[in-house]
Amino acid sequence: MLHFDSDYMRGCHPEILERLSLTNMEQTPGYGNDRYTAQAQTAILEACGLESGKGDVVFLVGGTQTNATVIDLVAGRYDAVISVDTGHINVHESGAVEASGHKVITLPSRQGKMNPDEINAYMTSFYADETWEHMARPGMVYATFPTEVGTIYSLQELLDLKEICNKWKLPLYIDGARLAYGLAASPDVKISDIAAIADIFYIGGTKCGTLFGEAVVTRHPELFHHVLTHVKAHGALMAKGRLLGLQFEALFSGNLYDRIGRNGVDTAMALKKGMLEKGHRLFMDSPTNQQFFILSNEIIDALMPHASFELWGPRGETETPVRFVTDWGTTPEDIECLLSIIP
Amino acid sequence: MLHFDSDYMRGCHPEILERLSLTNMEQTPGYGNDRYTAQAQTAILEACGLESGKGDVVFLVGGTQTNATVIDLVAGRYDAVISVDTGHINVHESGAVEASGHKVITLPSRQGKMNPDEINAYMTSFYADETWEHMARPGMVYATFPTEVGTIYSLQELLDLKEICNKWKLPLYIDGARLAYGLAASPDVKISDIAAIADIFYIGGTKCGTLFGEAVVTRHPELFHHVLTHVKAHGALMAKGRLLGLQFEALFSGNLYDRIGRNGVDTAMALKKGMLEKGHRLFMDSPTNQQFFILSNEIIDALMPHASFELWGPRGETETPVRFVTDWGTTPEDIECLLSIIP
Amino acid sequence: MLHFDSDYMRGCHPEILERLSLTNMEQTPGYGNDRYTAQAQTAILEACGLESGKGDVVFLVGGTQTNATVIDLVAGRYDAVISVDTGHINVHESGAVEASGHKVITLPSRQGKMNPDEINAYMTSFYADETWEHMARPGMVYATFPTEVGTIYSLQELLDLKEICNKWKLPLYIDGARLAYGLAASPDVKISDIAAIADIFYIGGTKCGTLFGEAVVTRHPELFHHVLTHVKAHGALMAKGRLLGLQFEALFSGNLYDRIGRNGVDTAMALKKGMLEKGHRLFMDSPTNQQFFILSNEIIDALMPHASFELWGPRGETETPVRFVTDWGTTPEDIECLLSIIP
Amino acid sequence: MLHFDSDYMRGCHPEILERLSLTNMEQTPGYGNDRYTAQAQTAILEACGLESGKGDVVFLVGGTQTNATVIDLVAGRYDAVISVDTGHINVHESGAVEASGHKVITLPSRQGKMNPDEINAYMTSFYADETWEHMARPGMVYATFPTEVGTIYSLQELLDLKEICNKWKLPLYIDGARLAYGLAASPDVKISDIAAIADIFYIGGTKCGTLFGEAVVTRHPELFHHVLTHVKAHGALMAKGRLLGLQFEALFSGNLYDRIGRNGVDTAMALKKGMLEKGHRLFMDSPTNQQFFILSNEIIDALMPHASFELWGPRGETETPVRFVTDWGTTPEDIECLLSIIP
Repeated sequence: MLHFDSDYMRGCHPEILERLSLTNMEQTPGYGNDRYTAQAQTAILEACGLESGKGDVVFLVGGTQTNATVIDLVAGRYDAVISVDTGHINVHESGAVEASGHKVITLPSRQGKMNPDEINAYMTSFYADETWEHMARPGMVYATFPTEVGTIYSLQELLDLKEICNKWKLPLYIDGARLAYGLAASPDVKISDIAAIADIFYIGGTKCGTLFGEAVVTRHPELFHHVLTHVKAHGALMAKGRLLGLQFEALFSGNLYDRIGRNGVDTAMALKKGMLEKGHRLFMDSPTNQQFFILSNEIIDALMPHASFELWGPRGETETPVRFVTDWGTTPEDIECLLSIIP
Repeated sequence: MLHFDSDYMRGCHPEILERLSLTNMEQTPGYGNDRYTAQAQTAILEACGLESGKGDVVFLVGGTQTNATVIDLVAGRYDAVISVDTGHINVHESGAVEASGHKVITLPSRQGKMNPDEINAYMTSFYADETWEHMARPGMVYATFPTEVGTIYSLQELLDLKEICNKWKLPLYIDGARLAYGLAASPDVKISDIAAIADIFYIGGTKCGTLFGEAVVTRHPELFHHVLTHVKAHGALMAKGRLLGLQFEALFSGNLYDRIGRNGVDTAMALKKGMLEKGHRLFMDSPTNQQFFILSNEIIDALMPHASFELWGPRGETETPVRFVTDWGTTPEDIECLLSIIP
Repeated sequence: MLHFDSDYMRGCHPEILERLSLTNMEQTPGYGNDRYTAQAQTAILEACGLESGKGDVVFLVGGTQTNATVIDLVAGRYDAVISVDTGHINVHESGAVEASGHKVITLPSRQGKMNPDEINAYMTSFYADETWEHMARPGMVYATFPTEVGTIYSLQELLDLKEICNKWKLPLYIDGARLAYGLAASPDVKISDIAAIADIFYIGGTKCGTLFGEAVVTRHPELFHHVLTHVKAHGALMAKGRLLGLQFEALFSGNLYDRIGRNGVDTAMALKKGMLEKGHRLFMDSPTNQQFFILSNEIIDALMPHASFELWGPRGETETPVRFVTDWGTTPEDIECLLSIIP
Repeated sequence: MLHFDSDYMRGCHPEILERLSLTNMEQTPGYGNDRYTAQAQTAILEACGLESGKGDVVFLVGGTQTNATVIDLVAGRYDAVISVDTGHINVHESGAVEASGHKVITLPSRQGKMNPDEINAYMTSFYADETWEHMARPGMVYATFPTEVGTIYSLQELLDLKEICNKWKLPLYIDGARLAYGLAASPDVKISDIAAIADIFYIGGTKCGTLFGEAVVTRHPELFHHVLTHVKAHGALMAKGRLLGLQFEALFSGNLYDRIGRNGVDTAMALKKGMLEKGHRLFMDSPTNQQFFILSNEIIDALMPHASFELWGPRGETETPVRFVTDWGTTPEDIECLLSIIP
């Protein structure tokens, strides 16, 4: 059985497991006050091109938790967050953002991406409406890199997005749950660009090789004044914080994060190439580790006993969009094997 | 200057003011433990056709407060509430529903009204989606009578709406901010129908003749176990609760609520008739006290020094939708006067 | 029957009722955008000695609502608020402060008053504790003037309290639910002192002559940037906002607020004098409109058919503390009559 | 350097690490829909003496998160939770319980334990107070086993506590962060007793041998209807849920949980015995893995370069209470070594 359901189906990258194993019996202080966490913070700031004192990093456990905690940290008390309608916070987080008091304002997406013109139009009409004080105030912008449908912003698109955010004084937060794959796929966006453009963003671990863990990075270190108390109030502070530090230190050693992203993208591109050669149509043209095709229901049914993957939306009458996800552990042989059983 | 901006621009109906004045120096217990409040509860239950013990009433101060408090009472802890996109809770309540933790799920409206088929389709696809546990769970339905654009449901439409709510076990909550005008305009819906169909609803006072106050009614009295504590936790418990009781007792004495609704609708219909005779187009065909027309910008500009009203949306290039609102205090002379200055 | 249960048992002062009656049919914009509200803001700032632009005022409906809304505005996202254990927010607000996410940290009171030394000790030990990041962070101080047991701070005590707050960078918020009575009783504290010492405070209307309404005043106008949206998210924005403006304009015209406070205190002092002359003991020596005595259960039982008042705590074996409250409407005759029936 | 600061300083028990390592490259469904999680649930229910269908288990990541999520699940919307003043939720959780809207009502502790008489007295006076509707309603009871100071309830004490909870219809929630050590120390309480007495409780993993993870168990499975959505709204749902299943399956295989508890207690008892023989005094007589002594500051200073441990409160003038914590990894040699350097 081949598994392409998602990128969180395995444990962690062997280099990370090794580091966890080697340090297992060591005793360190809790809650991130250990040297591994400090080392990971340093490595991340360096990778992001942020000088010491000009940036800060805090580690959380999972993605939804990170989004809810960060939005609740950055937005004003009841400020809303602007997201595309397909944004993870709007669809697949069980209302966690609203649970801490913030409305999600949705704008239509352009292949999963936020269109700066949409923000501009929304903000213009918001403040033109004389009843704006009675409406949830847009307090920040949420974007994903890559998006929920695998697409990525070009550097220019990110700069344009930021320009509009600046115009309206909206901090820009980038959810990098699959950042490794987005960076590997991008011809021009580097992690330092993300760090320079976003006011705050997170480097996803869970879907990019760790057991769990997301590293929140900001170039506004004053945002993290008392951040541990805020994190703990969200139930998001890990007792054995070094587990986060160790994993991220590993990710940022020996180019592991790059290698992970590269493997996910390379195997995904091999899959896409093979599928296109077979004459299958793309549902969405994604350059990253999520690949979307439209398959006949016949093929889908024949495939299911041999490979797991997701139907992307309700089953159609004759054909249905599907999603295959690769990751750091997918091998060329997995792709060959999958292609060999798809007509 | 004529004012048609809204129905909350005056104080209260003279019969209510008289009652407040007459009782002003009387001393009563606070927080609704007075005889006026008890009498108002009895009068409302009777008007709603709810026998004692089969229904309950609690009084709050304002509409947004009522919506947030009721939704937070009826929905499960983080349950979402389904509303049409034009719903007051979604647009004009500053995120108050989200502020207590509940996402607003929006469905497209049909002239301001909730379409039961839309609910059915949403719920069907919700539970068909295998990731539904990761999505905000729809826990109740919010509808307005009349709607934000002045339209009303027929009795059959309300029954159809309730049927779908029952199918999906979604309590139905009806926001009756302008209920008096909706009932006056309806050929078949009586307040007892609202009380029998909605699981919980409120009888609007603020826009229908009181200084302030909304009466929340339910035919599930168990919902109001400990309701005062819940209300107070929302900051919604009035110290001099008798002010609410007195006003609602007045509203439900001598058919005042009916008379108020009737006056609002009659004057609105006179306005509509006059406008149609002048050849102006309706923006929305409303049978209640909010009337929407499309006027040329030229007419709008000429009118503004003499009458206040709302532009309903951004100013168009040559014409713009506008809203005129009548209420219990609008006189036939006011309408004549307004019509006389509109070409 | 004489009523001394509380100071919210009547309607409003006749001068206020007159103003509400006279303006009743007038049409004004909603939500505080009317001239009465503007005039009331000006009058309050002037009374507080705050120049235009150096202070701001917003009107809310009730006390618990005001406390929850202000604390949620001033404190950081999950910051705790320090209060004495007898503080209204800790005892009699149904958890409304916690409902918006803030812990109430309680310190022992000194006759209802906050002791600056207690704050200093708490804060010193808080930051001395190496686990402080795991504890709810004290973000502001809540005090009442007068206190829940009728006592008042001297000017020096207020200055001392503020000094400690400054030392620990804790904004000071003063709940003035009964401020009129506190000011009338104080030999040295004026409303301008409260305005200069507190970072934010409220001038209570409900218990001091209005039907409802509390005026929140700050000398940090930047705090009120977007305050209406915040207020509305708390369900605390009144549609017919002029009702608040009108009442507070009346309170601050013709020394009404002073006269109200004076009457409450004068009648309370007459009661205290009479009771002491009869040989009754004070439970708490209050200079304001709440008077606390220890009465034998025999006297209490004999009194109950003729006068209503509160037992201040559980009934003791032979005697019980009781509270009598006067207000703007209490007459010398009421006191004489009450004294005449107490042995 | 010897470390006795806490029981979360190492990674995980080697048997757990082995299981994580062996399964690392396996692909399983996420969010707890894997067979390891199912097996762990079965093993836990069996250990708790709960038949299938008569109980349920859900896994969360950390203790504060678990407390906030469970209390917010069990208590009514704004219900308060009763805890002793030294309770973890009251002291060391950054206000996480209040962050989701619930007040913590504190009662004095008896050596860290909740005294049923205190609950009874509180509840009696609560409902005797005619203003109880204005007070945060006590909706559940929180207790810890063992307590924050290492003490444990006897079986009879637990039964007495439950009896009072039943009398007042207060669900009883037991925080078992260190449950393994409590069970190992108890002469009569078994995990099945906890499961039968508590309405809901959690089996702590983080401090008892896992990398992270807490298993919430209830004998009211209806409580867990839609629990994953609730958990995710709290940011507490782990993507790679099998990590929790695997660890708890290991804990409940081959008596590992018992052995872990036993080792912690045995080494703690050896330490206590040695300290008493040296003539040192106990600060608190704890039968579990936390040991509290009063040491002279001189000894403390001499010890610090060689062993880490916690000062339990502020440093006294000549002596200070200290805490030493053992765990599953502490060896008899560690204790001997520690004792050898303490005079």
